Amino acid sequence: MEIAIVFYVVGMALLIEGALMIVPAACALIYGESLMPFFLTALICFGIGIIFTRKRPESGFLFSREGYVATGLTWVALAFTGMLPFLFSGATDSLADAVFETVSGYTTTGSSIFTSVEDLPKGILMWRSFMHWIGGMGILVFMLAIVPFSGGTQMNIMKAESPGPSISKILPRAQDSARVLYQIYTVMTIALIATLIALRMPVFDAICISFGAAGTGGFSVLNTGCATYTIAQQIVITIGMIAFGVNFSFYYFLLIKKLRLAFSMEEVRAYILIILAAIALISIDLIYTGVYTSGPIAVKDAAFHVGSIITTTGYATTDCNLWPNLSQGILILLMFIGACAGSTGGGIKVSRVLLMAKAYKRELAVALHPNIVKRVHMDGKTADEAVVRNTGVYIFIYFVIFTISVLIVSLDGFDWLTTFTSVAATYNNIGPGFGVVGTMGNFSSLSDLSKWVLSLDMLIGRLEIFPIMLLFAKNTWRRF
Amino acid sequence: MEIAIVFYVVGMALLIEGALMIVPAACALIYGESLMPFFLTALICFGIGIIFTRKRPESGFLFSREGYVATGLTWVALAFTGMLPFLFSGATDSLADAVFETVSGYTTTGSSIFTSVEDLPKGILMWRSFMHWIGGMGILVFMLAIVPFSGGTQMNIMKAESPGPSISKILPRAQDSARVLYQIYTVMTIALIATLIALRMPVFDAICISFGAAGTGGFSVLNTGCATYTIAQQIVITIGMIAFGVNFSFYYFLLIKKLRLAFSMEEVRAYILIILAAIALISIDLIYTGVYTSGPIAVKDAAFHVGSIITTTGYATTDCNLWPNLSQGILILLMFIGACAGSTGGGIKVSRVLLMAKAYKRELAVALHPNIVKRVHMDGKTADEAVVRNTGVYIFIYFVIFTISVLIVSLDGFDWLTTFTSVAATYNNIGPGFGVVGTMGNFSSLSDLSKWVLSLDMLIGRLEIFPIMLLFAKNTWRRF
Repeated sequence: MEIAIVFYVVGMALLIEGALMIVPAACALIYGESLMPFFLTALICFGIGIIFTRKRPESGFLFSREGYVATGLTWVALAFTGMLPFLFSGATDSLADAVFETVSGYTTTGSSIFTSVEDLPKGILMWRSFMHWIGGMGILVFMLAIVPFSGGTQMNIMKAESPGPSISKILPRAQDSARVLYQIYTVMTIALIATLIALRMPVFDAICISFGAAGTGGFSVLNTGCATYTIAQQIVITIGMIAFGVNFSFYYFLLIKKLRLAFSMEEVRAYILIILAAIALISIDLIYTGVYTSGPIAVKDAAFHVGSIITTTGYATTDCNLWPNLSQGILILLMFIGACAGSTGGGIKVSRVLLMAKAYKRELAVALHPNIVKRVHMDGKTADEAVVRNTGVYIFIYFVIFTISVLIVSLDGFDWLTTFTSVAATYNNIGPGFGVVGTMGNFSSLSDLSKWVLSLDMLIGRLEIFPIMLLFAKNTWRRF
Repeated sequence: MEIAIVFYVVGMALLIEGALMIVPAACALIYGESLMPFFLTALICFGIGIIFTRKRPESGFLFSREGYVATGLTWVALAFTGMLPFLFSGATDSLADAVFETVSGYTTTGSSIFTSVEDLPKGILMWRSFMHWIGGMGILVFMLAIVPFSGGTQMNIMKAESPGPSISKILPRAQDSARVLYQIYTVMTIALIATLIALRMPVFDAICISFGAAGTGGFSVLNTGCATYTIAQQIVITIGMIAFGVNFSFYYFLLIKKLRLAFSMEEVRAYILIILAAIALISIDLIYTGVYTSGPIAVKDAAFHVGSIITTTGYATTDCNLWPNLSQGILILLMFIGACAGSTGGGIKVSRVLLMAKAYKRELAVALHPNIVKRVHMDGKTADEAVVRNTGVYIFIYFVIFTISVLIVSLDGFDWLTTFTSVAATYNNIGPGFGVVGTMGNFSSLSDLSKWVLSLDMLIGRLEIFPIMLLFAKNTWRRF
C-alpha cells in the first residue's frame, strides 16, 4: 500500500472542502447569520489538508488498490468534517445525527434527522443542499478536474468514485472527462435554477432545490417538501430530476452532435421506458382505487414521484403512505433499479439491470443448446465478460449487505415496511421510505445504532460497495 | 424440438402417477372412505399416459432442450392430474384452490388453502403428504430409476429436475444415481417413521409427517400443525427435517465409507454453521425480549423453526407472528437461503450462496490487483466459470420473478409483511409466511389471481426457473 499518495488525495479533498465553505458562508452573510460554523470548519479542513498535502509523494502514482482506498477514506473524511457546521451552529448536538445528515448530504440521499427544517439557519440549509451538488458528481472527480495527476492515477480514482458497472470514458484523458462532466453539470444546474426563478420560485428555494435535483439529493428547505410549490414548478422539478438521472455520456454526445450515438444508448432508452411504464401503472392504480379523483393531478404526482424515486432524488409532493399497495410496490422496486450509470443517481443502476437481463437471455439460450457460444452485447458492442461476471457478484453482495442492515435496524422494533424501506431509501441514496420514514416523516426516531448503520449504507451505496468494503479487507493493507 | 420424446416422458410420468394412487387409496380403504377419487384419477392418468407412450420415439434421444421442456411439462401435467382427488372427493370445488394445493404438494411447499385439515378424509391427507415425498426427490428421478433410457437422456432429465447450480453425479450413470438416491431416501424416511411411532405418535400422523419432513414439504394433518406433538417428537422431527436438507452426496459418501469426503463438503459445513448461528441468535432474541421465559423451550422452538424454514419444510410448533422482529427477520432470510443443493429442499440453496460469496472475494482481490488471475474453488476443486456466471444470473432473475410476483399479489390489498412473505414462502417452497399466511394461518383468503401466480411461483422455485421459463421462450419451440 502506497499510503503517502492516499493521504495526499484525502488532504487535497479536504482543502477543496474547506474552500467550498465559501458557498454556505456567503448565504449566511446575506441572511445576516453567524459565519463562525463555516469559518471554523474551513479552518479545520485547511489545517488537516495542509498537513496531509505538505509533501507531494515522489512515486506520484496511484494504483487500483490505492484508488479504492483513497476514495473510501476521502468520503469518510468528508463525513466527519462536513458535519462540523451542524455541530458548530447548534443545529444538533448528537454526533450520530450530524454524521447521518452529512453522509446523507454528500451521498445525495436526502434522508434527514431534522424534524423541522424551516427552523434551521439558511446557511445550514444551503450547506445541506450544496453537499448534494458536490457529492452528486463526486468531490474527487472535481479534484481531478482542477489538480494535475498522472493518467493512470486519474483513471483509478475515477473508476473508484464514478457509478456504474464499467467506467464511461467520455474522453481519453480522465482529467478532460472530469472537466467536461462538471461543465455539463454546471450548465444544466444553472438552467434549472433560472427556470424555477422564472416561474416565481424564491431564489433561495430555487438554488437549493436545483442543487438537490442536480445531485439527485432530496433535502428540501420546507417542512412540506415540494408540496407547496406550484404545479408548473413541480413539473419543472420532475423534468429536472429525470434529466439528471440520465447517463452524462448522452449529453456529451448531444454536445458534439453525435445524435445517433446519443439516442441509441440502450441504457437511456430502457430508463425512459421504465419511467413511462411506471407512471402509467401508478396513474391507473391511483385513479382506479379512488385515491385521486383528478386524472391530470394523479399523473402529475405519479410522474413527480416516479422521477424522484428512480433518480434516487427523494423529493415529494404528497404523502405516499396513503397510496395503494401496487403504487407503493412499484416505487419500492424503482428504489432498487435506480438511475443510469454515469449519472448523479444511485441504486443498482439501469445498465446493471439491463446487462443482467441480457445475461439471463444468454443462459436461456445455453440451456437450450449447451454448446452454443454467445456473447452479451450492449450498445452494439460486445460486453466484457469480466464486467458481466462482476455485475452478477455485485447484485449478490448488494442484497447481502442490504439484508444484514435490515436485520440490525429491525432491532428498533418498527413495523417491517418502515424497517425495510429505511434501509432501501438510504442504501440506494433516495431519502424517504415508507411508514415512519415516509415522504412526510423523517429518520429522527431511529436509534443511534441504526443511524450509524444507515450512514455506512449510504456510503456503501454511493461508492458502489468496493471502496468501502475494501477498507475492511485484510489484503488491502498488506504490503504485497 | 423433438416433441415425440417429450410426450413420451410426460406420458410415462402420468403412468407412474396413476400407479402411485395405490398409496392414498390403501389409506382410504383402511379408514373406510370412498376409493372413487383415487380410482378415477388413476384411470385418467393411465388413459392419457397410455396414449402418450403408445409408441416409443425412434430417435429415443433427448437433448438438453427437450430435457427442460419435458421436465416443465411433466410438472404442469402432474399439477392438473394430481388435483383430481381434491375435486372428486369434494374437498374443494375451486379449480384455483385444487391446483394450488396440488402444486404446493408436489413442489414440497406445504402452503394450504384448507382452513381445517382435520375435516378432510384421511385418504386425501395421505395424498397431500405423499405428493411431498414424491416431489421431494422428483418424479422424473423416480422414473429414471425404473425406466431404461440412454445415458444422455437420463443426464438431461436429471439436470433439469434436480436442484442445485450443477448436477451432482453420485455415480457415472444417471440411472444408478437415481436408484441410490431413492434407496437412501426410502431408508431414511422409514427410519423417521419408525422413530416417531416408537415415540408413540399415531401411525397415520407418523407416516404423513415423515413424508412431509423427507420431501421438505410441510402439509400437516392437524389444525395446530406440530404444536400438539410431544417435545421428544418435535425434537425428532427437527433432526429429521435438517437431515433431509443435507446434500444427499453426503449420505452416499458415508455409505461407501468415504468419511473424509463427506465431512469436508463445504456446503454441508456452511449449512450446519448457518443453522447453529440462526438458532443461537433467535434463542437469545426470544429470551432477551421476554417472549419466552424458559430457555430450553426457546431453544427447542428456535431449532424447530430454523430447521423447518432453512430446509423449506414449513412445519410449525407455535405462532411465529408473535416473535420479535429480529427472529422474524432471520427466518425470512433463511427462507431465501434454503437448503443444500442435491437435497429435497428449496430456496436459493446454500451452495449458490457459498459460490457467490467466494466469487465476491475474488472480485475484491481483482479490485486490488486488476491483473491477478484467480479461480473460485469449491471442495478443493476449481469451480467451472460457466457455473459461477450462471449462478450470478440465476440470483438476479430469481429476484426479478420474486418482485413481479409481489407486485401482482399486492393487488389483494394485504399488509406488506403478508404480501412479501406469501411470495417468499411459496416461491422458496416453504409453506407458511408471516401475517395472514403465518404459521397458524393459511392461503385461503388470497384472490384466485394470486393463487395462480403463487402456483406458478412454486413450480418455478422447485424446478429452479429454467424448465418453466423456457416453456415461455420463443426459441424453445423453433425447429433449429
